[in-house]
Amino acid sequence: MSESEIIKRFFTISETSQKSGVVLGIGDDAAIVDVPAEMQLVLTMDTLIENVHFFPDVDPYDLGYKSVAVNLSDLAAMGAEPCWLTLSLTTPTINNDWLQSYSRGFFDLAKQFNVSLIGGDIIKGPLSITLQAHGLVPKGQFVKRNAASPGDLIYVTGQLGAAGLALKIINEGMQGNADFKYEFERLHRPQPRVEEGLVLRDHVTSMIDISDGLMTDLGHILELSKVGAEIILEELPSSENLSKLTSETAWEIALTSGDDYELCFTLPDKVNQSILKKIDTLCPLTHIGHITDDNKLKLIKPGGKEWIFNASGYQHF
Amino acid sequence: MSESEIIKRFFTISETSQKSGVVLGIGDDAAIVDVPAEMQLVLTMDTLIENVHFFPDVDPYDLGYKSVAVNLSDLAAMGAEPCWLTLSLTTPTINNDWLQSYSRGFFDLAKQFNVSLIGGDIIKGPLSITLQAHGLVPKGQFVKRNAASPGDLIYVTGQLGAAGLALKIINEGMQGNADFKYEFERLHRPQPRVEEGLVLRDHVTSMIDISDGLMTDLGHILELSKVGAEIILEELPSSENLSKLTSETAWEIALTSGDDYELCFTLPDKVNQSILKKIDTLCPLTHIGHITDDNKLKLIKPGGKEWIFNASGYQHF
Repeated sequence: MSESEIIKRFFTISETSQKSGVVLGIGDDAAIVDVPAEMQLVLTMDTLIENVHFFPDVDPYDLGYKSVAVNLSDLAAMGAEPCWLTLSLTTPTINNDWLQSYSRGFFDLAKQFNVSLIGGDIIKGPLSITLQAHGLVPKGQFVKRNAASPGDLIYVTGQLGAAGLALKIINEGMQGNADFKYEFERLHRPQPRVEEGLVLRDHVTSMIDISDGLMTDLGHILELSKVGAEIILEELPSSENLSKLTSETAWEIALTSGDDYELCFTLPDKVNQSILKKIDTLCPLTHIGHITDDNKLKLIKPGGKEWIFNASGYQHF
Repeated sequence: MSESEIIKRFFTISETSQKSGVVLGIGDDAAIVDVPAEMQLVLTMDTLIENVHFFPDVDPYDLGYKSVAVNLSDLAAMGAEPCWLTLSLTTPTINNDWLQSYSRGFFDLAKQFNVSLIGGDIIKGPLSITLQAHGLVPKGQFVKRNAASPGDLIYVTGQLGAAGLALKIINEGMQGNADFKYEFERLHRPQPRVEEGLVLRDHVTSMIDISDGLMTDLGHILELSKVGAEIILEELPSSENLSKLTSETAWEIALTSGDDYELCFTLPDKVNQSILKKIDTLCPLTHIGHITDDNKLKLIKPGGKEWIFNASGYQHF
């Protein structure tokens, strides 16, 4: 099958589902899009590799879904509306069932946010998936990581550590996976917090998506904002299964495991409560601590003592 | 070394060399750029894989240079001005010398066109390089592949088959590589025809860059424009070394070998000669045939007879 036949068969969706702004999609030397004059373009690129980001026996549907999710999650953290995707797929062989399933997962999530695939590349080689997501944000309204101030409140969306617990179950060969359906769903099909990011962008002082674990990702906010933080460990939102573990194990997973794809953000102390209520209708929100001026990340145990814990999040090399 | 240390050390260039329009570069969840109101955004993504696009002993400088070149070449074929790059680099280990050299090749070409690196990803895995290039074109002035008309003249820039000859020398183990310096230069450091594309965009009826061989790439123009073509074989521009081979071998290499990264385009019969003169000051231009209305690609030998030749260009799978 030629590259263009593969694209026609698995990666073309009907024109009607195309996001507005697409002037020229797949099929020429490059794609063309219109960026409205009042908007700025937001770009993020992520690669998923076998044995690093997913297991060789991954369900290709999940891989398609997750490859879109991780990129939309980065746009969400900027407060951007997702619009267009480009995909470079490296695959050892052309397997129709695999491609069909990958494509279904990919478009199931893409359509949910009305995002269209406008270009890319297909290559023969070790399985690897690179996606770039393109979003739009009104000029100057994007959210950076560098403006958290002492006294700001730290929040996270959803729950932490669910994907990490699923990964622990896989790696440690624990039985009874049926009981961990929620955790496996979170690992395989994370839900990017796109709508939450759009509502939050006008109110937060900093925001990041949690892909490498809360400590690592909050650490980026602290470093760039030149501040510290206190995290109240008993406030960390965790799933029912995670809460059944010993406190320290649950904290460790919630603080350090990757693949959460929740948003971590800071709000001024005197934020309008109606904003929090608005977000709360979209997803659970938890106040987990506050920003300090001493450049340290302190973890506070029940009773008020500091928990000394040195593990960090996922290291890429 | 952490991902951010690698970026800081090898992939950050001084702010002064940044293309205008970069609002936020490397270092947040996503990059932000401004697209001027009168322009459209042009996007292209290409992946280079070991043993498919380059040999394991490739000079990393050349790989850096070429990974930028192949993407800028796609923008050139649309008539777009290159602006920004995103890079996903998958590498088995962090080797300082390798990264230094890759980065030098990458930025040597990027700086030549004042293009800046604004984001991406670094992953541990089998060597693979995905780049996305972002260009700008005044609204509606981009060049597609689908508007060649019978009677249009077919031109190519530069020479064809030089990279193909270098590849043949490598694959067939021929000696005396020193005599083929020009061909190896063309294989390892192709020069994207960016300025030529900018001048041509207002005059051509179709344009493509030759990455998979002239027959395959001109074939895309013919298919999408629903036309045919006659190519005059003795007009195919080839290097001195290619001309020393038998005619049929030289034609075959010029017609089918990939990696030329020249532009192939069609011009109306009555085009203003001053345009051709203007391009000719940038690079050699050769009139190699014309568009016909019979949906076939005919190769015409000296004397006027058709050469029946069925090989096609590079097949991706």
